[in-house]
Amino acid sequence: MVTINKTRFWENFRHLSTIGATGDSGVSRPSLSPEDLQARAWFHDLVQHDGFAYNIDGAGNQSAIFHCSDENARTLLIGSHLDSVKNGGRFDGALGVMCAYETLCVLRDSDAQLPFHLEVINFTDEEGSLVGLLGSSALAGALTRSELQNPRGGREALIEGMARIGISDETILNAKRDPKSLCGYLEVHIEQGTRLEKSGINIGIVPALVGSRSFWLRFTGEAAHAGTMPMDQRRDAFWGAAKFTLHAKSHIMENFSPGVCNVGQATLLPGAFNIVPGQADISLEFRHGSTQDLDTMETALLNIAEDVAKNNHLALYVTPVDKKVPSQMDSMMITALENACNKLELSSKQMLSFALHDAQYLSQIIPTGMFFVPSVNGISHNPAELTHQQDCINGAEVMLNTIIELAAS
Amino acid sequence: MVTINKTRFWENFRHLSTIGATGDSGVSRPSLSPEDLQARAWFHDLVQHDGFAYNIDGAGNQSAIFHCSDENARTLLIGSHLDSVKNGGRFDGALGVMCAYETLCVLRDSDAQLPFHLEVINFTDEEGSLVGLLGSSALAGALTRSELQNPRGGREALIEGMARIGISDETILNAKRDPKSLCGYLEVHIEQGTRLEKSGINIGIVPALVGSRSFWLRFTGEAAHAGTMPMDQRRDAFWGAAKFTLHAKSHIMENFSPGVCNVGQATLLPGAFNIVPGQADISLEFRHGSTQDLDTMETALLNIAEDVAKNNHLALYVTPVDKKVPSQMDSMMITALENACNKLELSSKQMLSFALHDAQYLSQIIPTGMFFVPSVNGISHNPAELTHQQDCINGAEVMLNTIIELAAS
Repeated sequence: MVTINKTRFWENFRHLSTIGATGDSGVSRPSLSPEDLQARAWFHDLVQHDGFAYNIDGAGNQSAIFHCSDENARTLLIGSHLDSVKNGGRFDGALGVMCAYETLCVLRDSDAQLPFHLEVINFTDEEGSLVGLLGSSALAGALTRSELQNPRGGREALIEGMARIGISDETILNAKRDPKSLCGYLEVHIEQGTRLEKSGINIGIVPALVGSRSFWLRFTGEAAHAGTMPMDQRRDAFWGAAKFTLHAKSHIMENFSPGVCNVGQATLLPGAFNIVPGQADISLEFRHGSTQDLDTMETALLNIAEDVAKNNHLALYVTPVDKKVPSQMDSMMITALENACNKLELSSKQMLSFALHDAQYLSQIIPTGMFFVPSVNGISHNPAELTHQQDCINGAEVMLNTIIELAAS
Repeated sequence: MVTINKTRFWENFRHLSTIGATGDSGVSRPSLSPEDLQARAWFHDLVQHDGFAYNIDGAGNQSAIFHCSDENARTLLIGSHLDSVKNGGRFDGALGVMCAYETLCVLRDSDAQLPFHLEVINFTDEEGSLVGLLGSSALAGALTRSELQNPRGGREALIEGMARIGISDETILNAKRDPKSLCGYLEVHIEQGTRLEKSGINIGIVPALVGSRSFWLRFTGEAAHAGTMPMDQRRDAFWGAAKFTLHAKSHIMENFSPGVCNVGQATLLPGAFNIVPGQADISLEFRHGSTQDLDTMETALLNIAEDVAKNNHLALYVTPVDKKVPSQMDSMMITALENACNKLELSSKQMLSFALHDAQYLSQIIPTGMFFVPSVNGISHNPAELTHQQDCINGAEVMLNTIIELAAS
């Protein structure tokens, strides 16, 4: 049975952790910053040193490739990202690239006969210091020119970052890969939550990255003098908004877990100490793993809002704001991951991903799989981020064995 | 038994209702507007025509005086205000002045021997188009120069209004009366609520005008990703603020009625669809008729806030904002009002005033009494404001008989 080289794997990971190290166990490697460029140079040198084919595309995505004997074969992408949030942890993204790279080394060294080219990829700017999921959305052909014109990190920062590695808007928009040349994408990532740790499970297999929907809910009653209007005659819009928020919370926790909902904003009008609120606007967002779950949640939540409005003599106005479809992972990938875990005698369970990952854009064009290893205390985007060494090793072993499963299927 | 002249009383009231009439049963006589000046001129002419002594003080308060035989006697003030809110009703304030004036006429015509001078007063700007309770606060010596410099209606409007009747900041600040020259103040007003109408009671005797207290309550939890943070691990500050608001509502309605509370403002931070609120600031105001009730309410409400914070793993920060003491009405006045109602076989009950009235400032310097007559549907500050004719007549009769009671006591 092929197995990873734990020493090499851990040595590479430890070396990577020193790049952009902040002295508190964390790293700070915002995308295309000097520290990220160091990590990218280190990865380039490692790939060259180990004798793999190296490629960098127009979006700055770096690849190490182990070609199979059939030059017309499609490519299986595996990887994650080497950039971090500012003052982040050393596992987020980096572990995924290193697990993929160790897998590449083992399979090349064991002279594996694969039915696909195997390509480890370091996606540019997953974390969004510049655009967010820049490399993976560009590769999937989902990135638009307007997103590049109005990036979340500011246009100036993007221009400076692009210049540092010699890419441009044009090269990024041309980085799209032909889906027909690809047979899939597989990524391992730290969970960034406590579900695995709390349940003592080794591996979380992701059936879907959640979708979300958001609405503005406006409850209207009647503004009134907060002295002369008796409380039993008020039509206080905030009483409705508060009741909705608490009912929605209980209902979602009891009936839709692990789906979540959030009321993150509230505005009361007229908005004075001495006036009963005649209008309350609240923002509602909810997330779940399938369109059907989102449909059911939407119906349930809007029914609660309507009931609360009716029972409190308020009117309700619902304004849809945004809709993000869930990203379904491929069933063949899920099966291969389950088989790999069983073979390795690692416990696993399916769990939705509530965060965004490069896998989201890949799943729009090719069969995609994703799995999690445990995060200590669920801490992430923080120097205290930690995944125990054995769990990191498990991640690499599951990656390796899943690819063997896929190669055999 | 002395009784009012219903025809004269109603004729005067109807005439007054034509001044500033808006054609929809309402009147629009903002303080010192052309329409208010017409009402003031009409009142001046009426007083002169009826042969009473007339006075206007430095705050523009108009008086009609029936002197008693003892020139060293003190003065009993009775009255209200002739100004209205913009597009208001014809009863608010006006009815109080007309009930007082009819009382003056009856007592003079019946050659009553009173132990006090009786003075009907029309207070300037009760409604606050300019300053609010301008005339009564000036008379009580409670008005400050800074309030005149920053009036709620704007300094320009105040300057223009003062110029129209030849008064100034200086004359207003010198309008203070010596409390030793006054033996009391009595006012009848429409209820502007539905308590009398709903209970079928004729007269509401006011034991106190409520005081109020206000606070900012800040609940703090932890801002978190609205996707990755499981709902059962959130410290959502808005859940606390919503729970507090609903608990406070129930508790005050069940234990402190007719006391009231209001949450009129809410701000959630960071304030985004996809972030669990880490901070929720809400404004709290509550009102009741005695300092003891306000103390008990404050303790109860802040205890609820602390319990909610504790049970939801939130921190609570309480910032006092404002404190208005209740205005207690005089017990001798209340007794005289009750005796008058009994004599007239009118039903009465005590009820707090939740709105401000000129009686508030008078009660700071002299024994003050106040009573309500019913408002149809509680509507006020609106052209649809209505008090049935018989209830208006009841108001004048109670005013008359209370003064007879006071004179005899």
